[in-house]
Amino acid sequence: MLSRRHRAQSSRLSTGLWDALAQHPHWATLRSSLHGCAQKRDITIQQLNHDRNGRERVAILGSGWAGYTVARQLDAEKYQAIVISPRSYFVFTPLLASTSVGTLEFRTVLEPIRSRRTNVTFFQGWADVVDFKNKNVTIEEGVEDPHQALGLMSHPHEREPVEERRRGMAKRLKKGQLFDLTFDKLVIAVGCYNQTFGTPGVKEHALFLKDVGDARRIRNRLLACFETAALPTTSDEMRKHLLNFAIVGGGPTGIEFSAELHDIITEDLSKIYPELMKYYRISVYDVAPKVLPMFDEKLAGYAMQTFRREGIDIKTLHHVQELRRGLPSGSKDKEGYQDDQSCWTLKIKEEGDIGVGMVVWSTGLMMNPFVENALGKIQQLPDTGIKFLAPKSETQGVIEWAVKKDSKTGSVITDDRLRVIIEAEGEQGHKPRAIMEDVFALGDCAILEGTTYPATAQVASQKAEWLAKHLNQSDVDKNSFTWKNMGVMAYVGNWNAIMQSGGGGNVSGRAAWVLWRGAYLTKSVSWRNRILIPIYWFINWAFGRDISRF
Amino acid sequence: MLSRRHRAQSSRLSTGLWDALAQHPHWATLRSSLHGCAQKRDITIQQLNHDRNGRERVAILGSGWAGYTVARQLDAEKYQAIVISPRSYFVFTPLLASTSVGTLEFRTVLEPIRSRRTNVTFFQGWADVVDFKNKNVTIEEGVEDPHQALGLMSHPHEREPVEERRRGMAKRLKKGQLFDLTFDKLVIAVGCYNQTFGTPGVKEHALFLKDVGDARRIRNRLLACFETAALPTTSDEMRKHLLNFAIVGGGPTGIEFSAELHDIITEDLSKIYPELMKYYRISVYDVAPKVLPMFDEKLAGYAMQTFRREGIDIKTLHHVQELRRGLPSGSKDKEGYQDDQSCWTLKIKEEGDIGVGMVVWSTGLMMNPFVENALGKIQQLPDTGIKFLAPKSETQGVIEWAVKKDSKTGSVITDDRLRVIIEAEGEQGHKPRAIMEDVFALGDCAILEGTTYPATAQVASQKAEWLAKHLNQSDVDKNSFTWKNMGVMAYVGNWNAIMQSGGGGNVSGRAAWVLWRGAYLTKSVSWRNRILIPIYWFINWAFGRDISRF
Repeated sequence: MLSRRHRAQSSRLSTGLWDALAQHPHWATLRSSLHGCAQKRDITIQQLNHDRNGRERVAILGSGWAGYTVARQLDAEKYQAIVISPRSYFVFTPLLASTSVGTLEFRTVLEPIRSRRTNVTFFQGWADVVDFKNKNVTIEEGVEDPHQALGLMSHPHEREPVEERRRGMAKRLKKGQLFDLTFDKLVIAVGCYNQTFGTPGVKEHALFLKDVGDARRIRNRLLACFETAALPTTSDEMRKHLLNFAIVGGGPTGIEFSAELHDIITEDLSKIYPELMKYYRISVYDVAPKVLPMFDEKLAGYAMQTFRREGIDIKTLHHVQELRRGLPSGSKDKEGYQDDQSCWTLKIKEEGDIGVGMVVWSTGLMMNPFVENALGKIQQLPDTGIKFLAPKSETQGVIEWAVKKDSKTGSVITDDRLRVIIEAEGEQGHKPRAIMEDVFALGDCAILEGTTYPATAQVASQKAEWLAKHLNQSDVDKNSFTWKNMGVMAYVGNWNAIMQSGGGGNVSGRAAWVLWRGAYLTKSVSWRNRILIPIYWFINWAFGRDISRF
Repeated sequence: MLSRRHRAQSSRLSTGLWDALAQHPHWATLRSSLHGCAQKRDITIQQLNHDRNGRERVAILGSGWAGYTVARQLDAEKYQAIVISPRSYFVFTPLLASTSVGTLEFRTVLEPIRSRRTNVTFFQGWADVVDFKNKNVTIEEGVEDPHQALGLMSHPHEREPVEERRRGMAKRLKKGQLFDLTFDKLVIAVGCYNQTFGTPGVKEHALFLKDVGDARRIRNRLLACFETAALPTTSDEMRKHLLNFAIVGGGPTGIEFSAELHDIITEDLSKIYPELMKYYRISVYDVAPKVLPMFDEKLAGYAMQTFRREGIDIKTLHHVQELRRGLPSGSKDKEGYQDDQSCWTLKIKEEGDIGVGMVVWSTGLMMNPFVENALGKIQQLPDTGIKFLAPKSETQGVIEWAVKKDSKTGSVITDDRLRVIIEAEGEQGHKPRAIMEDVFALGDCAILEGTTYPATAQVASQKAEWLAKHLNQSDVDKNSFTWKNMGVMAYVGNWNAIMQSGGGGNVSGRAAWVLWRGAYLTKSVSWRNRILIPIYWFINWAFGRDISRF
């Protein structure tokens, strides 16, 4: 026991953490003390158990494209779906960039998980420890998490050292901030965090575009840049910095955001701040030699051409080295305002220091620490629901099993039924493998073994639909998932879009824009939003986007 | 000079502050150094002077009912309207309570000051010092003020001691965060702050309902209370605390908010959290013997009856003594969670400690510190635009003039043309008086001498319309303002309202509710909102209010 604990602690801090906790001699005591706090926690769980009514319980971790879709589509007659997520809503991500400039109102891209039209149960919190043997997940409540509407950057306890975290966990257990939830089936769809590749200052100063809180920050910052630039106290030089907008990442999100940004500036802000139009600039930076790599040459070329015409700079093969608050060092400030903090400085390897009003970072996914930490070694295998893929002679001797992960991205690897694969730890060469038949992983945190499906909403929702359907039909093991490429679309500004169908057909321009809007309108989840979205498109076309800032 | 400075500094800190600054020997130097920073500040001012084009410039301080209405209605051919306000929008306050529970979306009650449909110029900032002699107002920029969407509670520099504030002001001058704006006419419409009567903890822990940021905080807090109460980690006792909502103040705002709160709970949250319905409670506290004092007995009685039927407790003659974070002291916590910070404790003189999930404070106005500080003694009278109301023999000897204020509320007192009255300082008994013909005050910060018009949106907007009209006609001095009482309305929940016309006619119930909605819909400013408001009424009736929290 000691040697195992020692090994766990000497491994990389965060990975060893959950292990250390679960293997801690007091863990059992802590757990049982938790179970002792009957009045504190059993009410809802009892209610849940009562409501269960003979159904199987499916615990779904995450409320993005994968988790939300599974939850909504599970047959409520057959399954009790319980969603655990740090946010109380699903974000319709393809239209998020539109909300960040006010083309759409924020709530038109949100669907609350709790709804009177579904039978989904929801608890707001973070999954912490998974006990596969007892089919139990320990959850930390997260209703008051101050970062809840922002794209995931860091776990609330990420920076705590092992000992502190252990003490913290014991304390939270005692305070009743942790609770256990048993499951029959587990769906892991926790998604990814933002990846900043360790670039100094990006985590602190850049804006992201993964959640609705991110979109709100962008909208407020953009309008604040213009409002500050309009003040008589702002110098011409500072105006140029403030109205210099940098987008890092030339994927569809970065491109669509740049297009939306260009739209609000030319369609609305130009009428409200005509005197500032000479100062603004939009640049898209990417390390790759070209942007929109998922589109074919012709469509990407059309996008580039549109951007050039609109005056958006595409800077490929450029490397961001730093983002810091304040003026660029080379900046000549006649009045000596070296401490002016109203702009930021972006350091580009190829260009040096650039004063910017806002940096929107839309590149890179980082594996969710939950996957890294809680889905590592498996303490004890469950008695049922394990399908060994090797002869008994090979698996019998295995002391330790671990969830199989992709060596590059750290994603959970699943079979073609989306079930999590585990393999023997410590073995060299040929490793005996097994399938956890009741544990599924999908969305950005999972890879189907042997495939290179992209980490997109389309793949996540197709997997989710497939899983819900076959869980409902109880025939998961008789089918296998294949992604059907439905094509890609991107809005490129000024009422133009590009669209590449799965079969290879291309559309660009105004026609593609009509298809783009139509597709996302019909894909919207609720009737509420299907009504509100075209209303806002019309209202903002007729009266201009709202520029109130709060 | 020294004795005057001494006197200024020995007077009450905040009052003496502006005096001390303006009388500071270096003030002239600071001012001229400010003027020296040509590149920093002259650009827009030059542009403004250019755009002025022979028109008179009207500087309008504030963007509420009074300031926004004047700005919009001034004839752009004749006047250059410049609004200075810490917020970039006007709030349609009668519907603010509706947004705090999601009956309406936040932006449907906002109108941005900058708009392509008006000719109003806007600078976001705080008016700081007024120089009546040179017709100049010094403004501190406020684009990044973190409290900008919240009802005014404190001035950004309120707590700085004199010396520090002076140094700060000099620094801001040097950094170019202050700028001067000359005017031909000045309209003071800065409004009031929230008044908490020094009740401990209220400023820190209560929620208010004066600005859109306040409404958003209420909406988030309300939903967080329910989400926390739904967690299995929450005890029954804590559920009662979390879902106990206290409203302090039985005026129309407090009553309407209580009604809206009751609506969202019974119409929407009851379907989403049915198991929590047994815990919630709504109470309205007021020190007075009755609520809704501006309504006649019968209507107020109807409101009370409606509330009783709906289970809302009206507690008149109750006194709030304290609001603090944490559990009530008498609370028995079996598991020893004394440090639970998820609820608050409200101490009521008549009831003792009560655990609450949210306190909405909607009582009391405090005079805006700008009125108190910047509109005190007048350093030097302007050469023109002063109309003495006493014979020259009496006014000639006057060394010091001061803006006349109401002794009880501290409001600026105006004549019936809304012009600011000044009077000789230091005299006993009969004080010579004069009128500043180019300085107007209206809204909650001003009182028309000899009247007792209430501090309402109706009075403010009627004054503003009157002022804009007569400025446009250049006949302010030939007319006088009288308020026409258009009656009062209040929503009392469950699709019922009360309405008392100016003439005394009463309507209550569903019919009054229809009139209530109709009146506010037609009074809404922009077509954008006049379209969106009924759409949201319909959408939220059909699909329920949105409960996404971000």
